Amino acid sequence: MQYIAPLTKLIEHFRSLPGIGAKTASRLAYHILDMEDAKAKALAKAIVDAKEKISYCSICFNLTDSDPCYVCESKQRDKSVICVVEQPRDVAAMERMRDFKGLYHVLHGVLSPLEGIGPDEIKIRELVARLYSGEVKEIIVATNPNVEGEATAMYIAKLLKPIGVKVTRIAHGLPIGGDLEYADEVTLSKALENRREI
Amino acid sequence: MQYIAPLTKLIEHFRSLPGIGAKTASRLAYHILDMEDAKAKALAKAIVDAKEKISYCSICFNLTDSDPCYVCESKQRDKSVICVVEQPRDVAAMERMRDFKGLYHVLHGVLSPLEGIGPDEIKIRELVARLYSGEVKEIIVATNPNVEGEATAMYIAKLLKPIGVKVTRIAHGLPIGGDLEYADEVTLSKALENRREI
Repeated sequence: MQYIAPLTKLIEHFRSLPGIGAKTASRLAYHILDMEDAKAKALAKAIVDAKEKISYCSICFNLTDSDPCYVCESKQRDKSVICVVEQPRDVAAMERMRDFKGLYHVLHGVLSPLEGIGPDEIKIRELVARLYSGEVKEIIVATNPNVEGEATAMYIAKLLKPIGVKVTRIAHGLPIGGDLEYADEVTLSKALENRREI
Repeated sequence: MQYIAPLTKLIEHFRSLPGIGAKTASRLAYHILDMEDAKAKALAKAIVDAKEKISYCSICFNLTDSDPCYVCESKQRDKSVICVVEQPRDVAAMERMRDFKGLYHVLHGVLSPLEGIGPDEIKIRELVARLYSGEVKEIIVATNPNVEGEATAMYIAKLLKPIGVKVTRIAHGLPIGGDLEYADEVTLSKALENRREI
């Protein structure tokens, strides 16, 4: 018996979190024990609160604590553009940029035949339903630049173009601050292909 | 507004933990939201339980959920030897080894004049009190091999020798599996100084 039961349990819980190994889990558990009581309880409450108060927006399927979410409900957002992303954390990344003023649509996944994820497993039908109001003019597909993300983008483009909506894809190329020397071949070839006159 | 309030709060709580940066904190928070309700609540409960059920053993000051702790209370442990360590996690390390059958004493710190930590700030008086029963024959000082740890070991030796107790220090030398080539000078000099006939 190395640890006492409540400590072992706490360490196991921390270990089940992503990116937390045995050493980090035990360090976190010992840190919790060293914490003030009130702070540890506040952490526990934050976990329960997050689970209880946060759900998905019934329009865009982003995480929200009120339905519809603050983006869908905002009067300042441009309702003619919808940016389609894979996960709620991608919305957070877009919002950090502060440049995009349109709406979002969270797919909650990408098409992946290998893993048995088809169009019905992700929120594609719900995206199509949003277009019937006629307000939406452009769909920006911002899925990740990998095989599944590209395939999903192509699928959405094929599906929506007949409805008469413009479907665009975010640009691929060299990241700002990146180094040409260290860019991989695919990125470099995309950057060359998508060159613009200056 | 990048994140909704309950999510922001959860991320901030995770960020305040040691070794957890902004990215890991937000990844953990999103993971909690993806978790089953029951599992997230179990994690929250494990945190509260650990704080409520775990306290310090009144004899050795190790973490315990019963007083005295299972080591102090065990009939199988050798009550003539006490291993003095800095922190409860050091007891866990010793117990992992399974070789040591004596008792422990957790100092909860080391002497550090620079940080204003003197003998009264750590559990040294409590260690001395444990010697009055006359049962204890040897004190093994297993504080960390650094300046504070060495100073604390010397202090304990000076304090306890007049009482007639044998005070020993764990050995310093090359770690098993270590490489002579990469050993630092101090470790190497200690290893040479403490050489034994084979």
